[in-house]
Amino acid sequence: MRVGILGGGQLGWMTILEGRKLGFSFNVLESKKDSPAGRIADRWFHPSEVEEFIKESDLITYEFEHIEDDVLEKVYPKTLPSVEILKIKRSRVREKEFLRKRGYPLAKFEVSTAGELEGKVRTFGFPCVVKSERLGYDGRGQYRLSSADDVKAILKNHPPEEVFVIEEFVDFAFEASRIGVRSTEGEVRIYPTTVNYHHEGILLYNFTDETPYDEEMGRIVESLMEDLGLFGLLAVEFFITKEGKVLINEFAPRPHNTGHYTLDGTYTSQFENLLRAIAGFPLGSTELKVPSGMVNILGLSLEDIDLKGILSVEGAKLYWYGKEKRHRRKMGHVNVVAKDKETLKRKIEEVLKGIYRRPAELTRET
Amino acid sequence: MRVGILGGGQLGWMTILEGRKLGFSFNVLESKKDSPAGRIADRWFHPSEVEEFIKESDLITYEFEHIEDDVLEKVYPKTLPSVEILKIKRSRVREKEFLRKRGYPLAKFEVSTAGELEGKVRTFGFPCVVKSERLGYDGRGQYRLSSADDVKAILKNHPPEEVFVIEEFVDFAFEASRIGVRSTEGEVRIYPTTVNYHHEGILLYNFTDETPYDEEMGRIVESLMEDLGLFGLLAVEFFITKEGKVLINEFAPRPHNTGHYTLDGTYTSQFENLLRAIAGFPLGSTELKVPSGMVNILGLSLEDIDLKGILSVEGAKLYWYGKEKRHRRKMGHVNVVAKDKETLKRKIEEVLKGIYRRPAELTRET
Repeated sequence: MRVGILGGGQLGWMTILEGRKLGFSFNVLESKKDSPAGRIADRWFHPSEVEEFIKESDLITYEFEHIEDDVLEKVYPKTLPSVEILKIKRSRVREKEFLRKRGYPLAKFEVSTAGELEGKVRTFGFPCVVKSERLGYDGRGQYRLSSADDVKAILKNHPPEEVFVIEEFVDFAFEASRIGVRSTEGEVRIYPTTVNYHHEGILLYNFTDETPYDEEMGRIVESLMEDLGLFGLLAVEFFITKEGKVLINEFAPRPHNTGHYTLDGTYTSQFENLLRAIAGFPLGSTELKVPSGMVNILGLSLEDIDLKGILSVEGAKLYWYGKEKRHRRKMGHVNVVAKDKETLKRKIEEVLKGIYRRPAELTRET
Repeated sequence: MRVGILGGGQLGWMTILEGRKLGFSFNVLESKKDSPAGRIADRWFHPSEVEEFIKESDLITYEFEHIEDDVLEKVYPKTLPSVEILKIKRSRVREKEFLRKRGYPLAKFEVSTAGELEGKVRTFGFPCVVKSERLGYDGRGQYRLSSADDVKAILKNHPPEEVFVIEEFVDFAFEASRIGVRSTEGEVRIYPTTVNYHHEGILLYNFTDETPYDEEMGRIVESLMEDLGLFGLLAVEFFITKEGKVLINEFAPRPHNTGHYTLDGTYTSQFENLLRAIAGFPLGSTELKVPSGMVNILGLSLEDIDLKGILSVEGAKLYWYGKEKRHRRKMGHVNVVAKDKETLKRKIEEVLKGIYRRPAELTRET
């Protein structure tokens, strides 16, 4: 099976590492060969070679949402999850309206043009969150507003035709996610719940945990996969409010950072199950072997972190993506497994300390 | 870290898949690029390019014992485990004499030239086992003799200068192995015991189990790593006799087929720990997450096996090496994990049935 991947980042890299085990080969479409997935692909294609990329791939999937429309038009017939789902996902307005129309639990929101924004946030009330329609990476294009005075600064970052979503600020008790997988043969599996900790809009660490909301979140993931007609992976991020309400924050129809722990924690990783799902193979078990978690390495090189200290933590495994260092960029992650939840949390703390030796390292501009 | 691997087979392939996670890159020295490890290496080198291979590698290791002497001479300074250990291992006579001299428990044996063989087996007694000094792959060059009449047939397969080991036939209760890892920093870890089931001299399946001999085997592995001055992996295969004696069958200073389960069963795989050991990194935990095992796919293609049936077994994971099909060749394997030992054994049986659908498939000449 020759699988084409749109995007050359770490999600594609891990999909290739996992998919090679099944005997699959991989083509990657990405502007630079020197990218995590581009480097290890059987064959790398520049976006200008998309026709050849399609011809040489039995199946296409994506690891990345920012794909040019003309590429999407062309890959459409061979791509799973479908390009339509990606198009919903690429617009925060369409994503939210799709969910609202079908009755999924969401924070209150409203759509606004740039011109209307100042007036609409005043009526909406504060604090609120403003997000641009077009996706930013890792928390970009998202603003928390405490007064209408902030609107001018926001508008400077966006073109005048930008559309915005104004969203109620959710004072959540915690953030959680569940990842589902649905195969072309109709099989469905849901991965365990993880509780997720973000730092300034970027996932910092997460771990598997049982919560009173697991079943509710699982039902939502399963039903949303059906509503989207999705074959592949669907990651759904949730806010659990202080009143115990489960709200969808957002979804992603691809491997997800909150599922990296599955490489070491569950019977089958999210990456292998994506491939099984779209290739029409039986899905692998999504059951947990042992409690597990993950810590992201943000904006630091191997020389910046206490590599030996981290590798000395029992059950810690490094994944290093080989990217050029940039401020707050996802450079790698460390998976951690442990016999029980308490040990797991202690090990995650040790790994966090090994990475961010001085608290300032987490935010420092480099 | 740029690691050079001597040999392009599946052991190198899994070493690369695991080592990429650590951010390592890989050179492979192998006569054919179209080999499991050659295909996925960052760079493949033909044996005629050994000088360049050495220059481009920070460290060298091997996944294979049949390496030309002139290559070994050259790679010597950068290679771990050391070339000396490989030289002991490549001669069954030196291996056994090394072990006997240091008092390790072995079946009774005697060394013989081709000319002396008939006379010596008569004095030795029957049944006995005759093995050529030079290693054969997968049980080749090994013969079980019930009378001296068999000697003529054996000699036909070997050049007149061949040397043989005549060995007592061990009527064992079971076969087991343990794999040890020892780092250049002096750290030592031992993987759990597996019980191994061979079919006509080739490993068919194995699984982790506790036996009354675990500690004794562990001590032997640890002490042998020291005696050999080994940095890297050491796999030791044992016979446990019906009288409860632990005998060393043989050892291998490299990743071992009986340790493939570690990819899914233990905190750290044998492949990652080999790399950690020779790169001077802290060793990863060799602890078991859940009971696990492995079934080899011998001499069959993906079309020959019940692929969907196998992948439907909860916790079964396929590793397909992408080699050309040959009679009894190791084509791939399936790892299996389960919550408990009984479930594990049942799943191994299901996987065996999925691979060897008719019992004849296990021995059939293709």
